Amino acid sequence: MSLEGYSVSLLPAIEAELQRQVARLEEPRTRPFHEMLAYHLGWTGERSGLEAQGKRIRPLLVLLTTAACGTAWQSSLPAAAAVELVHNFSLVHDDIQDHSNKRRGRDTVWVKWGMPQGINAGDALFVLSNQAILDLEPTHPTEIVIKAARILHDTCLHLTCGQYLDMSYEERTDLTIDDYWPMIGDKTAALLAACCALGSLLSDVDETTQETYREFGHYLGLAFQVQDDMLGIWGDSALTGKSTESDLVSGKKSLPVLFGLGKEGRFAQRWAEGHVRPEEVNDLAALLASEGARLYTQEIVDQMTNLALQSLRLADPKGEAGEALFELANKLLNREA
Amino acid sequence: MSLEGYSVSLLPAIEAELQRQVARLEEPRTRPFHEMLAYHLGWTGERSGLEAQGKRIRPLLVLLTTAACGTAWQSSLPAAAAVELVHNFSLVHDDIQDHSNKRRGRDTVWVKWGMPQGINAGDALFVLSNQAILDLEPTHPTEIVIKAARILHDTCLHLTCGQYLDMSYEERTDLTIDDYWPMIGDKTAALLAACCALGSLLSDVDETTQETYREFGHYLGLAFQVQDDMLGIWGDSALTGKSTESDLVSGKKSLPVLFGLGKEGRFAQRWAEGHVRPEEVNDLAALLASEGARLYTQEIVDQMTNLALQSLRLADPKGEAGEALFELANKLLNREA
Repeated sequence: MSLEGYSVSLLPAIEAELQRQVARLEEPRTRPFHEMLAYHLGWTGERSGLEAQGKRIRPLLVLLTTAACGTAWQSSLPAAAAVELVHNFSLVHDDIQDHSNKRRGRDTVWVKWGMPQGINAGDALFVLSNQAILDLEPTHPTEIVIKAARILHDTCLHLTCGQYLDMSYEERTDLTIDDYWPMIGDKTAALLAACCALGSLLSDVDETTQETYREFGHYLGLAFQVQDDMLGIWGDSALTGKSTESDLVSGKKSLPVLFGLGKEGRFAQRWAEGHVRPEEVNDLAALLASEGARLYTQEIVDQMTNLALQSLRLADPKGEAGEALFELANKLLNREA
Repeated sequence: MSLEGYSVSLLPAIEAELQRQVARLEEPRTRPFHEMLAYHLGWTGERSGLEAQGKRIRPLLVLLTTAACGTAWQSSLPAAAAVELVHNFSLVHDDIQDHSNKRRGRDTVWVKWGMPQGINAGDALFVLSNQAILDLEPTHPTEIVIKAARILHDTCLHLTCGQYLDMSYEERTDLTIDDYWPMIGDKTAALLAACCALGSLLSDVDETTQETYREFGHYLGLAFQVQDDMLGIWGDSALTGKSTESDLVSGKKSLPVLFGLGKEGRFAQRWAEGHVRPEEVNDLAALLASEGARLYTQEIVDQMTNLALQSLRLADPKGEAGEALFELANKLLNREA
């Protein structure tokens, strides 16, 4: 069974588990509150549906890892829901912190319901993730449930640290590539690492294998983020038409930008002069590439991808779920947008 | 040993446990992030110290309940830290949602570090509470640890529901006293109930006794909040000098106000005309009292107090810790500010 084959059964099961978890808020008094979460998760409101729900990559990783370790994926559904709820909690708060109006082409929660309710909706998604992970209890030994909860909470602490670093970097002008890795390690890679750690913890594999799966998730997360940084400057939507979406305009200190700043050449000079206008984006992206940033960034993507695939091979995932895991990794790392 | 006697040993132990939990953020990279939390918790920055730390009522309740159930309070310290961290997470987010500049006489976190970092600091306090509760593991059976975590998470969901209701009430003009109870039940009473539920869960008492302690905390919370509503209109700081602190000026739909609105008399008339100015506060508070609101509210405080003390007597707390619990309840419910 291919990744697509798996997705046909996994994705509806993930959605059903998420809905079961969020239903804790479905009391008459808190129905409009429930609606905020249902809207954000893409189930209701304008243009709801698959596109609005996102790709559910994190819960897929949890379930495929469990299956590739030889255990029925169904028993990991509460953990799959938990990581997706954590991811969405961080998105809801991110959108407020970044003052972002749109998420997956739709108005963000805080735009629709105001900033105070937006903060609270994010908090609720966070609480629901904590409740979801404990729903592993009927099917797993209590020691394993506590280990799973610990992985989830430790990961959330990394997320807040990554968020702190990311926001504090906005004001700093002294950053180098060395500052980049801890930030994306905490902000992006930690949660993907947790998905694979959880998926394998909830099966019968030994601790060494669990650690190898965790490393796969970690490098996958790093590769994914650096790839994202590439696309943020040289991707289609960054260069053509909507060049306001370029990371050069938002001023994000992504890996190619930090590389360019380190070169102290014409790119660094232009960057120091202040805010980049959309009409400059094409020339500046070409300038940055000419200083070697694009090649460097692609090399890093390739390195991290190799490390991820190496870890995955070492973990030795079994059967068709194992093949689907390789497929998911390749799909994530070869995307164009 | 009196409540004061207990406080001498309990309060420093609570502070030490909180510091141990928050120390998870004490890495060189995240030191300024750690500082935000240390400042909010009253340990550092301008006018740090006992006043800035607050009364730590919730952790005291946890520890005294455990002791009154005949178990050494030390083993409940992680749970005590967890409830205090939850309380402070909600304060940090509350201050952003209410746009409050001051907390215990000091600048709020978001005023000092900006709204985005403030949201993230609250999130971190929340994560730390989740991590703290799992630190019960070495000293308690895993089933009990999971039960404790479940109590904590269920309570947090109540907090978000209460917060949702409270914020949604701001815009509503059709509220009655019936809308009041679920809101303060979720927003205030749930956490105090959790303190007593946790404190007794972590001892050897049976489930009926645990439920009785939970009820004690629940009624204590309701009594505490209604008392707070009394002070918000007829308390010293609401009436004299800083009458901007009156709930009549902030427009809070507290119990006396909802009572007054239900009377549809002169108070309701004035309320419908819009924002109350500080110079009107004394006359309006007197008008509201003349329509019976003060007497009514005091009766409710007395009722809830009686229910709380009745539950506590039924729980039959043991020894000096038991006496200290009664003392704490009486102190909370007979405060003047």
